[in-house]
Amino acid sequence: MGKSLDEIGKAAKDAAGSLTKMSTNEKNRLLQECAQALLDQSGKILDANKNDLEAAVGIKESYRDRLALNASRVEAMADGLREVAALPDPVGEVPMMKTLPNGLIVGQRRVPMGVIAIIYEARPNVTADAFGLCFKAGSACILRGGKEAIGSNMAIVRSFQETLKKNGANPDIVQLVEDTSREGAQGLMKLNSYVDLLIPRGGAGLIKSVVENSTVPVIETGVGNCHIYVDESAKPEMAIPIIINAKTQRPGVCNAAEKLLVHRAIAGTFLPEVCEALKEHGVLLKGDKSAASIVPYIELATEEDWGTEYLELVMAIKVVEDTGEAIDHIQQYSSHHSDAIVTENYSNSQRFLNEVDSAAVYVNASTRFTDGNEFGFGAEIGISTQKLHARGPMGLKEITSTKYVIYGNGQIRG
Amino acid sequence: MGKSLDEIGKAAKDAAGSLTKMSTNEKNRLLQECAQALLDQSGKILDANKNDLEAAVGIKESYRDRLALNASRVEAMADGLREVAALPDPVGEVPMMKTLPNGLIVGQRRVPMGVIAIIYEARPNVTADAFGLCFKAGSACILRGGKEAIGSNMAIVRSFQETLKKNGANPDIVQLVEDTSREGAQGLMKLNSYVDLLIPRGGAGLIKSVVENSTVPVIETGVGNCHIYVDESAKPEMAIPIIINAKTQRPGVCNAAEKLLVHRAIAGTFLPEVCEALKEHGVLLKGDKSAASIVPYIELATEEDWGTEYLELVMAIKVVEDTGEAIDHIQQYSSHHSDAIVTENYSNSQRFLNEVDSAAVYVNASTRFTDGNEFGFGAEIGISTQKLHARGPMGLKEITSTKYVIYGNGQIRG
Repeated sequence: MGKSLDEIGKAAKDAAGSLTKMSTNEKNRLLQECAQALLDQSGKILDANKNDLEAAVGIKESYRDRLALNASRVEAMADGLREVAALPDPVGEVPMMKTLPNGLIVGQRRVPMGVIAIIYEARPNVTADAFGLCFKAGSACILRGGKEAIGSNMAIVRSFQETLKKNGANPDIVQLVEDTSREGAQGLMKLNSYVDLLIPRGGAGLIKSVVENSTVPVIETGVGNCHIYVDESAKPEMAIPIIINAKTQRPGVCNAAEKLLVHRAIAGTFLPEVCEALKEHGVLLKGDKSAASIVPYIELATEEDWGTEYLELVMAIKVVEDTGEAIDHIQQYSSHHSDAIVTENYSNSQRFLNEVDSAAVYVNASTRFTDGNEFGFGAEIGISTQKLHARGPMGLKEITSTKYVIYGNGQIRG
Repeated sequence: MGKSLDEIGKAAKDAAGSLTKMSTNEKNRLLQECAQALLDQSGKILDANKNDLEAAVGIKESYRDRLALNASRVEAMADGLREVAALPDPVGEVPMMKTLPNGLIVGQRRVPMGVIAIIYEARPNVTADAFGLCFKAGSACILRGGKEAIGSNMAIVRSFQETLKKNGANPDIVQLVEDTSREGAQGLMKLNSYVDLLIPRGGAGLIKSVVENSTVPVIETGVGNCHIYVDESAKPEMAIPIIINAKTQRPGVCNAAEKLLVHRAIAGTFLPEVCEALKEHGVLLKGDKSAASIVPYIELATEEDWGTEYLELVMAIKVVEDTGEAIDHIQQYSSHHSDAIVTENYSNSQRFLNEVDSAAVYVNASTRFTDGNEFGFGAEIGISTQKLHARGPMGLKEITSTKYVIYGNGQIRG
């Protein structure tokens, strides 16, 4: 049986200490070695994954797909580690440095977070991704994946630990919580002595449980009940492709649109057109009474619909009186991930950008762009929907901290 | 009786919404009006404070001093609000803006946090300070002060609410939790639907309780078990003034030094000299066996001493073998607030800056400089000793969030 959570925490903290002395070159070299180890141990990893799949009877097909590995998925994990190695190292950056009137030189230096815990679900590739990003950002990580993937995760983490050890690094830089019971996760959420940051990655239920139960600092990620509001002045030939893209290009992800708000003045002409296009893409349509009175195959939405992240080909449509009502609706029901207005009206676009309080607010573009790679961060550990520390896509910089370094020559305070 | 916590939270969230539309000029004007209201209502505030002081039987004299107001303290609160009005507004700053290859313009804009809760102890001046900073940073605040100050706090908050209302602003921009029971504080710590950030201000016990019980995002502040390490190469004529300043200039604050580490090679000559100076300043000295064997009036320290923030004229001294042992000791016992090395050795100074993982790390200067005003932030809501969101002194910028605003012309994701 594995170590206790307390032992894991203590070992992670020690390992984090060793990381503060590791150069960027050394981290990059070890990431390359770990990528190679994944390929070298591909056989063991795939065997373990096969056992996991066999044991996971009765799970949903979509869940099984996320759990499954094959040779090309293992290669993708290795490529991911190599891409992280190629990214600039955020540690050591100096965002601010200045000389005070008394001659003290005060600098703010970017430093590792320390120990980062990640709680996630079925995807074993998160194990490699999360390790790569945390390690490059100078932090030790404690990984707690879903119970169905335990064998795969153990094989992946073991390949990293062996590689680190062989290269003289502390293998506890990456550790897996082998206790996949509810208690294992709950314990990790309260490991304040050792864990500097906990990031949950998964569905709304997991995120909610982490936020409600954690006493360690958490960054809430990913739930996306995203809206597109089509203003009176919108060009239909711009609005329809944006809606189709945001709803159907990849419906199972957090930046996909779930709700469509349409200005009453254009609803009579615009709704039949956009609904036809959505129907052709296989989208099931729900809506309020006004929408349903215009398009007969719209089902009536319930109050619950407005707050729901469908993650599938379903969209709920509401007719609104104006930009103000659209903003009020979004403020009330949005998960504050990504929301968009389509408009040609300058004042309405500005008002929407100012008043919608979400991580990413768009004018005339698809919500699907809220993504670390699309924003040019190179990699992403998740999309924060909270306001503290990081908001929106989180790259390497967002999982670091800072400290003040002060150079004096004998200054004392008067 | 006051509103329920849930009603307070909801009202604060509504008020925060109204703040997103308020210009800097309007916020500054209202801050000036609130400063004037404090002076105009000085009589009522001092009467309420007199009642608080009379009711607070059996409290410590230092606590009574913090609780007490007089005309000049009320003026200082008003001055504080005027100073905050004069500071630049962080809201609306654009830390980053760029055009992506597909033509999307992505900007990161500084926005208000939303609703900030502050839990604090006896000082009624925190009521005015916290309101001023939160309001200038565009957030509504929920204040929960100590039960001894409830009358004073109610009078202060009422003067602000009346001023806001008279000027057409939402009075719920500032609210006081009138339930000063333990349950009142605990409820606030779990008000996730409404509170975006909770900042505890007070002693170690309060901070610990907030960190352990909160499910809303918290910024941990203020506990300072600060160290000064005097290296073999240190100049005594620089080290002694730094130690005296850090220990005795204001012993009751979080950036005062509590521990002194001295390199063994100089302990025999340096310790008698520095201890004499500390004794002259009324400091009670504790220490390990080595220190006590050199200076006879050093009392033996216990294991508990090394982790204790004294906040009074007490200092514990340890003799260490080298910079490495000093760093290890600090990493183990420091509250990671402010720690300093005094040295003439370049490599040791760099190593100390790199390896000591504290909010502020000093070479050759007093730890007393860790302060928002000293660092040039203009004002300070506390000093963060956690790694998430803000670390070290927190000014207006540190109590804001950001959001991404994206300007498109019909972009969809490929």
